[in-house]
Amino acid sequence: MSRIKPRTLSGFMELLPNEQVYFEKMVEKLREVYSLYGFTPLDTPLIEASEILLAKGGGETEKQIYRFTKGEHDLSLRFDLTVPLAKYVALNYGKLTFPFRRFQIGKVYRGERAQRGRFREFYQADIDVIGDGSLDIINEAEIPGIIYRVFTELGLHRFVIRINNRKVLNGLFEILGVADRAGDIMRTIDKLEKIGREKVFELLTGDCSMEKDSAERLLNLLACEAEPIAALGEYKGQNKTFDLGVSELETVAKYMSAFGVPSENYKIDLTIARGLDYYTGTVYETMLLDHPEIGSICSGGRYDNLAEYYTDKKLPGVGISIGLTRLFFVLQDQNYLNPELPSSPADAVIIPMTEDLAPAISFATQLRGLGVKTQLYSENKKFKQKMAYADKIGAQFVVLIGEDEIREGKVTAKDMFSGSQVSASPAMIAAGIAEAVNKKAGITPIKEPVE
Amino acid sequence: MSRIKPRTLSGFMELLPNEQVYFEKMVEKLREVYSLYGFTPLDTPLIEASEILLAKGGGETEKQIYRFTKGEHDLSLRFDLTVPLAKYVALNYGKLTFPFRRFQIGKVYRGERAQRGRFREFYQADIDVIGDGSLDIINEAEIPGIIYRVFTELGLHRFVIRINNRKVLNGLFEILGVADRAGDIMRTIDKLEKIGREKVFELLTGDCSMEKDSAERLLNLLACEAEPIAALGEYKGQNKTFDLGVSELETVAKYMSAFGVPSENYKIDLTIARGLDYYTGTVYETMLLDHPEIGSICSGGRYDNLAEYYTDKKLPGVGISIGLTRLFFVLQDQNYLNPELPSSPADAVIIPMTEDLAPAISFATQLRGLGVKTQLYSENKKFKQKMAYADKIGAQFVVLIGEDEIREGKVTAKDMFSGSQVSASPAMIAAGIAEAVNKKAGITPIKEPVE
Repeated sequence: MSRIKPRTLSGFMELLPNEQVYFEKMVEKLREVYSLYGFTPLDTPLIEASEILLAKGGGETEKQIYRFTKGEHDLSLRFDLTVPLAKYVALNYGKLTFPFRRFQIGKVYRGERAQRGRFREFYQADIDVIGDGSLDIINEAEIPGIIYRVFTELGLHRFVIRINNRKVLNGLFEILGVADRAGDIMRTIDKLEKIGREKVFELLTGDCSMEKDSAERLLNLLACEAEPIAALGEYKGQNKTFDLGVSELETVAKYMSAFGVPSENYKIDLTIARGLDYYTGTVYETMLLDHPEIGSICSGGRYDNLAEYYTDKKLPGVGISIGLTRLFFVLQDQNYLNPELPSSPADAVIIPMTEDLAPAISFATQLRGLGVKTQLYSENKKFKQKMAYADKIGAQFVVLIGEDEIREGKVTAKDMFSGSQVSASPAMIAAGIAEAVNKKAGITPIKEPVE
Repeated sequence: MSRIKPRTLSGFMELLPNEQVYFEKMVEKLREVYSLYGFTPLDTPLIEASEILLAKGGGETEKQIYRFTKGEHDLSLRFDLTVPLAKYVALNYGKLTFPFRRFQIGKVYRGERAQRGRFREFYQADIDVIGDGSLDIINEAEIPGIIYRVFTELGLHRFVIRINNRKVLNGLFEILGVADRAGDIMRTIDKLEKIGREKVFELLTGDCSMEKDSAERLLNLLACEAEPIAALGEYKGQNKTFDLGVSELETVAKYMSAFGVPSENYKIDLTIARGLDYYTGTVYETMLLDHPEIGSICSGGRYDNLAEYYTDKKLPGVGISIGLTRLFFVLQDQNYLNPELPSSPADAVIIPMTEDLAPAISFATQLRGLGVKTQLYSENKKFKQKMAYADKIGAQFVVLIGEDEIREGKVTAKDMFSGSQVSASPAMIAAGIAEAVNKKAGITPIKEPVE
């Protein structure tokens, strides 16, 4: 018969089995942490009516979206998890309790130009807290605590959560009389790290037509490294938005240590803005200290109106998103996957050496009852090939059950990592294997390489 | 602004938060059991090149598939998890170790006519063991053990796994000289339960043009309730395929108890066939005893060639699939969701009663450290409304931290289920809450209603 050459579409991540185990572990940790913070899991369809997903409209989204018709329906694949959340909350408003805390980890689709490390299908891992009419600032203060917990549980420690407040920026632009150019100015400020202060100053006074004096004051303030909140003091009392923003930033900073975020893992950074129209309060970015070139690995912020395209209810919220597929790609690429994480499909492979498989099967059942991932291997192969199988899949233990063992009421276990071998009662061997396996339960999927 | 009416497409399941918790718990249990049996998790793209998904061709599939173009690419959404597995194994053949045991739980798409309980987007939960050239019968014998474990872990007990072997049927048709009408005959036999033996006999001798004697013999054998394997004895020695099939069936039956499947949960049933071309050995169906009208909730079998459309390698395998979305719908519909399962996003809601939130935040961190799902509630509401929030989300514990508590170094916890309230040190309260929460960890998502 004629055959089709198997292939996976470019821009679609498809992992090998041992790689997949790392990815699954990361997802598991995220679910665990989000649940501990009282977020409930949601799962919305990957396909929505195009009019729903495109309610907001806008250029890049429309170009990148996977849109098609089926029968008479105009359908699209979701391109983020925020728009489906907005639809969900508007649709189920009467059935939800607010503040509504949900997490969602799922695939989204964007038909970007394929390039290394960019994906057309990728996981996002989002949390959001949605208020009904209002939402207390404590929710904004809690987010960095969650980010901190998520990354440390994954095994990352050398990262910094950058925190800013959009009200501070907006107020400041009003004070300086440049509110009409806020977008251009922020995009320019955003280049500080890349092109340096001098070039940014040129652009601010040139393209953005700021007065030299204003540009100087703005740069002095935003680029101030030490005590940014103190530095904001000199502008207080001139603008309500600004004052409110400073007070929010103070509150968020004040509770960092109560939320368990060490001072080296967060930083008030007045230069971050995270998009122009959407965020209205605290904003977050998270950078790997050793790989700032990767950009933010977890971002988000406070917004005033989640679902304005679907409902007249005012639904303010705060949320963050992790681009999990890209994060995984980067961590793998940078050698961050922890080699100590057990990634074998089996902790133990049982090799029966007798015609009657019942004793081997019973022992498999015993091991599984203790939480040990167990395979029975009874393919028609030579002994050496059987051992090679266990070795190849990376199983730590091989259990041999032959005539001798059955007669003596024992089983023989070989630790493939240490090479040691022991014969004992099934109960003792099972307990020993289970203990060794449980010891490794806390190993994180990620480990920062020692420089 | 003009608003779009929020809606979710018909045929797409979207659950409310507390329902979603049940679904997640079911998925979690499946993952747990599949892992214990040494299956490795896989995740393949939802979109594949159409030529890959449609390599086999065929009517219903082509009609139901979601197919579209993006740029110059002809793309389709996967309609099952088997075709992507075949592609994956063919593509990564050199990097995999065989037998390759994988599980995959993911969404698939079929543009069926929407009707109650039928979904266009639905989860399948599949396991497969793929051999390279050959695969031992022990793998076929192990599958009912896995099915048994999966459903009992979910909380189901009143089900029966029906087991048959396609070689037995094929051999039997050859012996009876009706191999050319095998398909028609099996489809007729399949109606036994629905229309009864007499009508089936009429169809066999009419539409299927079987001799009366052959039809009688066939019905006597297939419909035999007691000792079907013994009944097969009289046909032995006449046909190689038949004899091999009987021997395989005997082996599978022999190991049932070693694999931990109680005799009331499985049954050799010579009437089940599971599709015509694909399966070649053992086949499985799983029926709820109290709801046979639902049909099989977990089916599969042994096949000879997983990936013949992509590779000339012979890759025999055995697998089963659970249509999870439909199963969930049915169980919910039939009142099988266990009301005892905690489905609240939070085990504890902390209500701070002071200006300074630090003590409340610290206690939240303490609870989360013990694995207690915790929310901080500090919205600007009256006390009664705060308690109503905790009640509405179904949290078992409310923790109050006011001036008195802080002065005395205590916190006050109220058990919303029992109504009891106690003040004690944060460590004691935290331990008490954690203990109550942990006690509920083993509660199954499903519970059979008492008739």
